[in-house]
Parts: sequence; C-alpha cells; structure tokens
Amino acid sequence: MEWKDNALYLIDQTALPHEKRYVKCRTYKDVARAIKDMIVRGAPAIGVTAAYGLVLGAAEYEGDNVQDFLNHIEVVAKQLRETRPTAVNLFWAIQRMLDVACVNRDKGVDALRDILLKEANSMAQEDVEINRKIGCWGQKLLKDGDVVLTHCNAGALATVGYGTALGVIRAAHEAGKNISVFADETRPYLQGARLTAWELMEDGIPVTLITDNMAGYFMKKGTITAVIVGADRIAANGDVANKIGTYSIAVLAKENNIPFYVAAPVSTLDLSLESGEHIPIEERNEREVTHIGRIRIAPYGVNVANPAFDVTPHTYVTSIITELGIVCPPYNQSLKKLFDKYNIC
Amino acid sequence: MEWKDNALYLIDQTALPHEKRYVKCRTYKDVARAIKDMIVRGAPAIGVTAAYGLVLGAAEYEGDNVQDFLNHIEVVAKQLRETRPTAVNLFWAIQRMLDVACVNRDKGVDALRDILLKEANSMAQEDVEINRKIGCWGQKLLKDGDVVLTHCNAGALATVGYGTALGVIRAAHEAGKNISVFADETRPYLQGARLTAWELMEDGIPVTLITDNMAGYFMKKGTITAVIVGADRIAANGDVANKIGTYSIAVLAKENNIPFYVAAPVSTLDLSLESGEHIPIEERNEREVTHIGRIRIAPYGVNVANPAFDVTPHTYVTSIITELGIVCPPYNQSLKKLFDKYNIC
Repeated sequence: MEWKDNALYLIDQTALPHEKRYVKCRTYKDVARAIKDMIVRGAPAIGVTAAYGLVLGAAEYEGDNVQDFLNHIEVVAKQLRETRPTAVNLFWAIQRMLDVACVNRDKGVDALRDILLKEANSMAQEDVEINRKIGCWGQKLLKDGDVVLTHCNAGALATVGYGTALGVIRAAHEAGKNISVFADETRPYLQGARLTAWELMEDGIPVTLITDNMAGYFMKKGTITAVIVGADRIAANGDVANKIGTYSIAVLAKENNIPFYVAAPVSTLDLSLESGEHIPIEERNEREVTHIGRIRIAPYGVNVANPAFDVTPHTYVTSIITELGIVCPPYNQSLKKLFDKYNIC
Repeated sequence: MEWKDNALYLIDQTALPHEKRYVKCRTYKDVARAIKDMIVRGAPAIGVTAAYGLVLGAAEYEGDNVQDFLNHIEVVAKQLRETRPTAVNLFWAIQRMLDVACVNRDKGVDALRDILLKEANSMAQEDVEINRKIGCWGQKLLKDGDVVLTHCNAGALATVGYGTALGVIRAAHEAGKNISVFADETRPYLQGARLTAWELMEDGIPVTLITDNMAGYFMKKGTITAVIVGADRIAANGDVANKIGTYSIAVLAKENNIPFYVAAPVSTLDLSLESGEHIPIEERNEREVTHIGRIRIAPYGVNVANPAFDVTPHTYVTSIITELGIVCPPYNQSLKKLFDKYNIC
C-alpha cells in the first residue's frame, strides 16, 4: 500500500495473480469498501489500511471545531470497524488513531490531521519492522531442509510488507536455509493459490500448490515437517482465530507430530478475551462458495455455509512467534508476562 | 448408465449440475476414455462401466476362434485396467467378466458375446440391489436428527443407482428419519458441489454445501454428528483408500468423537493387500488444481501436487457398511470372517 497525493493506493488483491493493478481510495468510504470487498485483506494490512481510512475521514471534515472533528472521526471509525468483525488488528489500529487524536486535541484540527497522517505512516513503517523481527525470531524454529505448510496468505500482501508467516519463511530463506513450502489453495477465496504461491514464486522460494484437503495426506506421508500460519485474533489463553481451515490443519499437525506455529504481531493479541470462544466469526457471502470468478460450480438454490474463520484451541499451538519473541505454553501465563514485561495495555 | 442399441450411454458427470447430457460409447476405447476423463467416476460405477467396455470390445472382434477372442478381450481388459489405478472395483469387474468368458469358452464366440452382455447387465442390476442392502444396514446407524458429513460423491452417480454413502442417507430418509447433510465441495474436481449437492436436492434431502476446509469447524461446533463416505479400495486390515481429503476428515472426526463410517460393496475389499500402504495412489493432471473450468486460479508455472486419493488408517474407521452387514474392528479378523462366511474368494 502507498500513501500519495492525499490518497491511499492499494494493490487489488482480487485481481492477483493475473493482473497487478492498484485501487485508489480518496475517501474513507472507499477504504471501508476496499476492506469489506477484500481488495485488501490480512489482519495487519487491514489495520494499517483502516488507519489511513481515518486520515481520509479527517480530511473530509471541513470545520475547525475540535470536538466536532473528534465526533466526526468517531463516526468514521464506527463505519471502518463494521467492515470485518474477526481480525482484532482493525480495532486496535483504529483505537490507536483515536487515542492519538484525543491526546493531542489541544493542538487544533489542522494539527490533528497532520498528527493522524504521521501516526498512520508510523504504523505502516512499524509493521514492516515488526514482521522482520517476527521473521528473525521465527526462522530459528526452522531447520535446513524443512518443508513448511502454510494456509491462506500471511505474507507481504497481508501486511504492509514482508509478512508474518511468510516473513518467517523469508527470513529462514535469507539465512541460507533450504526451505520449501506447501501452500494450501485456501478455498473459498483462494488466497493460497492466488497470493501465497505468487509471492513465494516472486521471491524464488520453492512452492508447491495443493488443495486444502491434501494437507493431511502430505503430513501423514512425512513430506511436511512444519506448519506456520498467521492469525486474525489471539485470545488470552492462546486460542487462535485464523482463516477457515486452520483448525483442521492444527489437528492434523498434532496427529502427525508436526509443530504448528502461529506468527503474528502483538497487535493481534486480544487479552480482553479469556478464550477463543468469544471471537466473532464472520460469515461471508455464499457466492464465494458457489462461484469461482463468474463460473457457478454448484446447483442453483443450494444451501451454503461460509464461515470465513475458525478458532484453533491453544492445545494445538506449539508456539506463537511475535516481534517480541517466541511465546510458549501455558499461554495464559506467557502472554500475560509478555504484556507485563513490555508494558502493553 | 444405460445399455441400448449396442452402445453404452453415460451421464456426462463433467457437465453436471448445469447440464444433464449423455455420452454415447460405441467402442471399448470410448469407454476407456470416459473412465479416464471422469465422464463416469465412482468406484462401483467404473467397475460396471468397464464390464460394458469388455462387451463392446467383444463386439469388435470379427473372427470366430475362441482363443483369439479370449486373447482379444485380454488386450481390451488391459487397456481398461490402465485407466485408473486406485479403485479396485475396476479390476474386480474386469476379472469377473474374463472369468465368465473363460468358464464358458466351449460355447463359441457368438455365445460368449451374449454371455458377457448378460454378465454386465447382471452386474448393473446387482449393483443397485447391493446399494439398497448397504442402505438398509447402514441406516440403522443413523438416528433422527443426525447431521451427516459426506465427502466427494458416493451416490447414485458413483454407482449404477442409489449410491453407497448416499444410499445409507437415502435409506435413513426413506425410513422417516430427519437427516440432513453437509457436503464437502471436494476440490479439485468438485464432486461434492457438482454431484452430491445436486443428487440430494433432487431427492429433497436437506443439504448444506461447504468447502473442504470447513468440515472441522462444523465438527468442533457440534453441528455434524456423523460422517459417511464411500471407498475406492479397502485393505485386509480395514485401511480405506478414498477421495483425497477423506483421511483429514477421519482424523477430525476422531478428534471430535464423531463416528466415521465407510459404506462400500464387498467388491471394494481387497484382502490381497495386508494394509493400505500398498494401494497405488493416482496422481492426476495439475490442471485440475490450477484451473476451474477454463479459469486459471493460480500463477503460471506454479508447481502443483494432485494426488486423487488418500488412505485412512483403519484405526479411524468406526465401522464398514457392506451389503452383507456392518463390519466392526478388528477388521483383519472381521473382514476375513465375512469372506469365509460367504465363501468369497
């Protein structure tokens, strides 16, 4: 993503891998639509995108009354929050922006607009640094020759750059380890086939594309030696919400004694939730299941379920790789300790 | 499938659910192509189809020398056997046809042609009866209100009629039980979305279509209360080869204490194999993964794996439903006993 000439430019992830085109967002409503329609997706990416959405919303306010301005960006924030319910980074990023505005309210509307843009820019820059740190920690868990399964896309496209799960793989690759990847295609939206395979091929990291239901076969066969996925929200006990299908992979990994790693920034942690039970699961449009592109693949009138995420209980998670280090079970203690140590609230 | 005017008519399963059209096979090579290209698929269906392939092969022989005729149909059999390696019903059906020809070799070529046609017709008729018996036994395992997950298509389309796994569901429905079904779409070939959903909707049995990676979510949530799948080959120890993804479902079912049933005719049993380890797994064309219809969904040049089947170890199988009764673990004993009791060789 790029901020240029008072607009946010996003790679249109619905057009990849066939076409690399950009969508220009001039208003916060453009941003909300881009998040909802998955032009941009991935928990960290939608967080930073929403931050720029607030910048655009702030620009749309025409008066000079600070309280009115703050009320206005609250309305903008509300609409941005309503785009997608599961990933917590969206709420985290919006809150961070609102807090900055609140703290600096004495400086007046014009200054607040600048401050919000600077904050969004900082978040974008930090995101790449955070991912490099995640990569740095995480790559220690991978050994030369590992074949890593990943699900969905937790790569550069899901973040501002470098990626979380793919950041770990990239870092191991950069450290000279011989790492190859199996990418689940990730139905219904095909983020694995369209985005992960494309990203890894661009970087020259060997990748084999499989359908989601083949992962178990290659685990049992001994081909896959580690699993790394991203996360959309992690509860205080270590339960992980992530793209639908992650839970199944975690169960299969445990059954086959394969480590199951989650790579995510601290902003994905939601210690206000005791467990993953309370994480809201987004149900998306049935057309994603019944169609691929414009092709209908199912009978007319068929009943469809389309939960976009699932929750993997912490008992299946070998460790959580954050920018502050690798967190191990028992998570209700180790995650709290991490927050206390770094004074995160 | 229908035999009419010296030709075999097959529903073109590649065109469903959008179009119900028939493919006419006039030669055994047409039949071999139809099996290979999955115009007809499903272990029992390809067995009977291959039997008619031998009938067409027999018609193509023009001489009257019995030994030449037998040699000729051996050549035909070889080509039919080479179409698909995993399902054993294909080999079983071809062998049954060759045995009938061999036993009746004294009757001359013309009589042999008639005998082969009668045998193929018998097999087709028996197949429906066998499936009704499987349904009869299997429906006892389902209770009112059960929500049954099935994978791929083990229905009327995978057999001559009624189906194995779907036969059990149909029989429970006909017995007045309130049964609903979750159908995995079954990538890459989408038999669940295209065929199972269509079949069940035609019969008025409630069905919800999901992507393969959603099955675990609905098991953990408690929505799914039983799993029934078909089989392509079952080894002496009860290991089950079936459509890719079956193993993953079995692991998830066990993890969630959900019974995992396999419905298959005795002709699917291959007691010559001690375990599933030795069952050959067909690797199909990568285009099935990279494309849906004519739409490419993955980057050009991506490496792809496409194993069409997997093997579910017997430890995950609650019971095997055959036309001769329900078989329970330990399978190496119970399957042998079944064969001894019914004198099956």
